[in-house]
Amino acid sequence: MTLSTTAQDLIGAWERGNVLAAGCPSRGILQHLTSKWGTLVMVTLATGPHRFAELRRRIAGVSERMLAQTLQQLEADGFVLRVARDVVPPHVSYSLTPLGVEAAAHVVALTAWIETNLPRLGPPLPRPQAER
Amino acid sequence: MTLSTTAQDLIGAWERGNVLAAGCPSRGILQHLTSKWGTLVMVTLATGPHRFAELRRRIAGVSERMLAQTLQQLEADGFVLRVARDVVPPHVSYSLTPLGVEAAAHVVALTAWIETNLPRLGPPLPRPQAER
Repeated sequence: MTLSTTAQDLIGAWERGNVLAAGCPSRGILQHLTSKWGTLVMVTLATGPHRFAELRRRIAGVSERMLAQTLQQLEADGFVLRVARDVVPPHVSYSLTPLGVEAAAHVVALTAWIETNLPRLGPPLPRPQAER
Repeated sequence: MTLSTTAQDLIGAWERGNVLAAGCPSRGILQHLTSKWGTLVMVTLATGPHRFAELRRRIAGVSERMLAQTLQQLEADGFVLRVARDVVPPHVSYSLTPLGVEAAAHVVALTAWIETNLPRLGPPLPRPQAER
């Protein structure tokens, strides 16, 4: 291996994240994508662009404040694109960026796995009582 | 489609989770797997069984209390197996169950994607200052 390749590998390792290291920025990204609402926003936007009110309706239980904050984080990370059309009334829609599409594929795979395997997971669900 | 197939599909849809529904237990499972420490425990155990102290050392920043709580949740969900060998001093090790291995595959894929793509994500990282 040449010195140049070794140096290149070294720099590659520095640029690569390490979620097990406390200070690594990859931890923040991971938390945004896997936060309670972050995951659900990514899964919903994976089905196509949505307006704010549509997102709120589809993601049961999210507050206006938490949804706005989640969208801002995902936008800052580069996963979500916010497009405001200058019309009256204002029309703002949210969609996944190409990077967001890549990330969402993993979030959707994990979520789909949980949904499909739910009967095998956790403590047994309560079953209807047999008639006596 | 026969009545029996239709009924079977219907029951299948009931048993399948829906993370977008507020009351669905899949949300709890998703949160355990994607919690800050849940993700890191799954990724670490995906490399093989670990004792408690080993996990704490590898996952920078986790407190004893949070690690214990995270392991208990993942054990209750059926992802983690806790094996206590009755020796002196006591030897307790944690590993993934077969179900945990399946779930970890998705968590690892997401985490690896983030680590690999970190240079493309988020606000630009600070670069060393040029000399003046």
